[in-house]
Amino acid sequence: MQIGMIGLGRMGANMVRRLLRAGHQCVVYNRNPAKAQALVEAGAIAISDLAAFRAQLTAPRHIWLMVPAAAVSGVIEELLPHLDADDTLIDGGNSHYQDDLRHAERLRSFGLHLVDCGTSGGVWGLERGYCLMIGGETAVVERLDPIFAALAPGVGSIPRTAGRAGPPSRAEQGYLHCGPHGAGHFVKMVHNGIEYALMGAYAEGFNLLRHAGSGRSDRAHDAETAPLAHPEHYQYDLPLADVAELWRRGSVIASWLLDLTANALQEDAQLSAFGGRVSDSGEGRWTALAAIETGTPAPLLTTALYERFTSRGEGDFANQLLSAMRYQFGGHHEQPQD
Amino acid sequence: MQIGMIGLGRMGANMVRRLLRAGHQCVVYNRNPAKAQALVEAGAIAISDLAAFRAQLTAPRHIWLMVPAAAVSGVIEELLPHLDADDTLIDGGNSHYQDDLRHAERLRSFGLHLVDCGTSGGVWGLERGYCLMIGGETAVVERLDPIFAALAPGVGSIPRTAGRAGPPSRAEQGYLHCGPHGAGHFVKMVHNGIEYALMGAYAEGFNLLRHAGSGRSDRAHDAETAPLAHPEHYQYDLPLADVAELWRRGSVIASWLLDLTANALQEDAQLSAFGGRVSDSGEGRWTALAAIETGTPAPLLTTALYERFTSRGEGDFANQLLSAMRYQFGGHHEQPQD
Amino acid sequence: MQIGMIGLGRMGANMVRRLLRAGHQCVVYNRNPAKAQALVEAGAIAISDLAAFRAQLTAPRHIWLMVPAAAVSGVIEELLPHLDADDTLIDGGNSHYQDDLRHAERLRSFGLHLVDCGTSGGVWGLERGYCLMIGGETAVVERLDPIFAALAPGVGSIPRTAGRAGPPSRAEQGYLHCGPHGAGHFVKMVHNGIEYALMGAYAEGFNLLRHAGSGRSDRAHDAETAPLAHPEHYQYDLPLADVAELWRRGSVIASWLLDLTANALQEDAQLSAFGGRVSDSGEGRWTALAAIETGTPAPLLTTALYERFTSRGEGDFANQLLSAMRYQFGGHHEQPQD
Amino acid sequence: MQIGMIGLGRMGANMVRRLLRAGHQCVVYNRNPAKAQALVEAGAIAISDLAAFRAQLTAPRHIWLMVPAAAVSGVIEELLPHLDADDTLIDGGNSHYQDDLRHAERLRSFGLHLVDCGTSGGVWGLERGYCLMIGGETAVVERLDPIFAALAPGVGSIPRTAGRAGPPSRAEQGYLHCGPHGAGHFVKMVHNGIEYALMGAYAEGFNLLRHAGSGRSDRAHDAETAPLAHPEHYQYDLPLADVAELWRRGSVIASWLLDLTANALQEDAQLSAFGGRVSDSGEGRWTALAAIETGTPAPLLTTALYERFTSRGEGDFANQLLSAMRYQFGGHHEQPQD
Repeated sequence: MQIGMIGLGRMGANMVRRLLRAGHQCVVYNRNPAKAQALVEAGAIAISDLAAFRAQLTAPRHIWLMVPAAAVSGVIEELLPHLDADDTLIDGGNSHYQDDLRHAERLRSFGLHLVDCGTSGGVWGLERGYCLMIGGETAVVERLDPIFAALAPGVGSIPRTAGRAGPPSRAEQGYLHCGPHGAGHFVKMVHNGIEYALMGAYAEGFNLLRHAGSGRSDRAHDAETAPLAHPEHYQYDLPLADVAELWRRGSVIASWLLDLTANALQEDAQLSAFGGRVSDSGEGRWTALAAIETGTPAPLLTTALYERFTSRGEGDFANQLLSAMRYQFGGHHEQPQD
Repeated sequence: MQIGMIGLGRMGANMVRRLLRAGHQCVVYNRNPAKAQALVEAGAIAISDLAAFRAQLTAPRHIWLMVPAAAVSGVIEELLPHLDADDTLIDGGNSHYQDDLRHAERLRSFGLHLVDCGTSGGVWGLERGYCLMIGGETAVVERLDPIFAALAPGVGSIPRTAGRAGPPSRAEQGYLHCGPHGAGHFVKMVHNGIEYALMGAYAEGFNLLRHAGSGRSDRAHDAETAPLAHPEHYQYDLPLADVAELWRRGSVIASWLLDLTANALQEDAQLSAFGGRVSDSGEGRWTALAAIETGTPAPLLTTALYERFTSRGEGDFANQLLSAMRYQFGGHHEQPQD
Repeated sequence: MQIGMIGLGRMGANMVRRLLRAGHQCVVYNRNPAKAQALVEAGAIAISDLAAFRAQLTAPRHIWLMVPAAAVSGVIEELLPHLDADDTLIDGGNSHYQDDLRHAERLRSFGLHLVDCGTSGGVWGLERGYCLMIGGETAVVERLDPIFAALAPGVGSIPRTAGRAGPPSRAEQGYLHCGPHGAGHFVKMVHNGIEYALMGAYAEGFNLLRHAGSGRSDRAHDAETAPLAHPEHYQYDLPLADVAELWRRGSVIASWLLDLTANALQEDAQLSAFGGRVSDSGEGRWTALAAIETGTPAPLLTTALYERFTSRGEGDFANQLLSAMRYQFGGHHEQPQD
Repeated sequence: MQIGMIGLGRMGANMVRRLLRAGHQCVVYNRNPAKAQALVEAGAIAISDLAAFRAQLTAPRHIWLMVPAAAVSGVIEELLPHLDADDTLIDGGNSHYQDDLRHAERLRSFGLHLVDCGTSGGVWGLERGYCLMIGGETAVVERLDPIFAALAPGVGSIPRTAGRAGPPSRAEQGYLHCGPHGAGHFVKMVHNGIEYALMGAYAEGFNLLRHAGSGRSDRAHDAETAPLAHPEHYQYDLPLADVAELWRRGSVIASWLLDLTANALQEDAQLSAFGGRVSDSGEGRWTALAAIETGTPAPLLTTALYERFTSRGEGDFANQLLSAMRYQFGGHHEQPQD
């Protein structure tokens, strides 16, 4: 099947490679032809002009956008003059699902289709395949089935879920038509919200393992901390990288994120390359917003998000105020940092 | 190698089976011989009298205890008259690591050894192997290596962590000597603490997916909830079982707990067999206690624990007080349940 | 000074009374004249027709709206034909500050002014005075100063803040021009966000006091809860109403919400009139949304909000999923409720 | 009435002054007589030798200990040889209530009494009075009534709780016999647990007010934060000191902690004297421990505690691990601090 691709960053370029390997024809657009050179060597057709891009694609056209969420509206407007009725745009980036609703409405007024596709897989997707969460009109999503099937991981060696029978469903192959416009990005949004809390859970746990020696005499001299009632209970020096490795094997908490944790700790159990200022992207925030708007309790997902804000110093003033209050009622002077 | 086993519940019995399959000699103790019958058929030697149990085991003896945490101290005292110096007890249950410290001290005064072994794997362990987190004296742990190796999952088909080289380490085979007495149960404790928060993260996420249709006209009539500003944003009816299945494939949040979630939702996406009163065992609590004692922030782990308390009605009085305060300052009468 | 009032609910009617007592002229509008009868007896002029309302008010008119947030836009549109340039509407209800921005823009296009005024005080405001958080153009806010001063509590007997000198500022009298359009409702929004967490803090604390006897033999038989390691530590039966009373006197946590708590517990320390389904209004949610949008950590404020959602059963499915997972990995059957 | 006092720190010395003003005889013990000089000038009898201290006190003696929690056991042992049956020690410091149980047992074996007395009031107590939470045998507590009444604030001008009638109860005067040994410190413990969450609620709220201008062009250039979807909603520059002042007047969230907040912000709205490393003392931790042990949900109280740990860098390793995971799956390099 033929597909046009706009957006040749790391994600977009790897997706083109995976599609080419599966035998699909990929027409990639980039204003700067040099950027597409490596993909041309891999078998793609590169175009640097939108009119030519349109001409190269057979109607009804399918054009995959793999651009930053903030750029999608602009790219759609730029493309509009070059599209014909029944052409389809697939937004494979990290758009807010509420923007999908707006974009779909806009495109519909020109007889065009939008498919929203939340894409998980990161830098591993080229080899591992991409998990695809898809929203849009059923007929249009059906038409794109070969593309989704090629990008998705497929059944692989993952054990089958109890109660599943018959030929593997699309979900079992790693892609799913979740519902109407926006449903794909909605599911991807919640996926990332969960991801934040899973990451936070491991982070808190490993941090606690690291504190398992806080009763040792070489660590105990901290004027700010109430002295441990039982320092003899906290005398360990645990091998963090080995624990992460161990838990990958037969434990209840084995996961892909734990695999990555094991990688990171194996490289350097002190993690000294990282300062601990943790960024967050839109989806984690949108998940929390959706929880609040729908009245759904999500304390873990939201607290995990807030911990990232705090890691970047956004809670500093709150802490200063706490110290100021303590000074006001108790005359407690804040402990110096060292 | 020869091992004695006390405690033939589901976990203990399955561990005996796995050891027998690996060619080890298992002497199982139970006061009620009928209970051990199935294991005898699988190749175990069953004994219903402690003196005979002692006689059957070759010194130095290795006796694995797979009994409830609350029973360990009693079993140790019962065994003491039947042990000789250099015999070893392995506590494979869910004991508090601080009890290990006490037990080890008690046993040491008789020249005996304790090995604490946190065991993860649940009902799946027989086939999948058990993840073993071990604490104790190095020489004693070494002596038991064949037993641990047989119980653990082994390397299996799990991709190797980047940077690991050479013959697979014990951690890569699914068992690890974590440190001195108590270190095994300490690591197991934190494992379970993480488990609670991982479970909670998925639970919150799927609950949010289920609320994705809260703007639909058939759901909107709820006098207690502020009306949605944009009901058109929450019109979805998402296929939860398929989403769980999908995320198992190539997504960032794939995990064994997600596999189990997919099983459960595939069986019944309404989960109508479950009322939602969630139990908690000791480890989750002990993890939170350790976090507080060592001054380690663990809001996700602890909030996940508290959500379980709340699910069992332990927060009801707090909620009544909130309603009472609202009535006091605003004359707000509580909304009836329906 | 003359003021028009639309919205004669409990809040609006009491505010009219307080203004009348201070010697202001109040023209109250209600389609149903019967509703205004009590206020007429207190000295107000009642009008049931918008044209007559307009005629009764001297230009430039000042009309206070005390209507539900969802009704404000409609009331504004209804009033527009009856207003002249330089007239002012004061929105004293619980509007979202972002709606103020929209309303102010709309009114500006007609040469009209909006003042937003967050109002705290509840059913106690008539006697105690209302705390007023005001946003809008400085000149317009100045013009209304006599009205705000009459509604506000005034200096009263509250001890002066250290470092304050000279004649009491408006803040010290209980009203404040916080900034441009929306600033008043923004400050009121955060006020309510804080309120939720303060309430939650007391609620958790008193609930814990109530659990202080959980080791007593008459309470200990709960199959779901891990048995207390030290039941002898939890043998108390604390007098909750007296503790609330006590803390009002010289303690660090004395507050008006604690006064209300003391009222409620004095009436019935079991709070048996309240089922514990806690409602939430818009401001608590908007506070959390603002925290997320601005990247400001607010775990207490947001968790307090989520606890209210949970109290209304919105977390039930999450809990069912937790039980289902436990069943999947451990064969744990959920404990029946009783 | 006569009372002995050991521990002449800020709290102890001020309590002596308040007792002297009420006409009680205070015998203060200090090894270093110079330390007691100021109190002698205020009317106290100072003694620097325990035998003389004993001789000066009329049996049955009442000796108030106002020493650090960690020192109480030692002081008790030191005093034991100098006490006679029926003498009473009052532990007015911040002891763990479980230590009270131990100390009471120890003293009982000598025919001595313990009264535990949680004391709130800080540096303000001398003028404002101390809120006293008392545990112990009824007859012994009764004996000390004049002392407690003198230290407590008394009824003052605080409005009476609805439903209270007759002469003011002890709770209304600011002291309360809460129950048997430990009950006083238990109630004080929970008091401090609540205090942490109240403080955290205000701190989060004021921090959010401070972020109300995060959409302004002079603040918007932050590479780590997702750009605001609507920067026009966050354009405020709110007067924090005035808002704190305002909320003291007629608002729902008025409190003594807010009074202190107003003091602090009036002095310097930037709080530049405070770095934001917030200490925590034992009670906040013990409250969380008690919540976990009794299965009582306390997410606000505990999260407030964890925020203090985080403010002191105890979560740094967790944050480093989050950044490391992000790098592993997405190739995201952490943003530099500036």
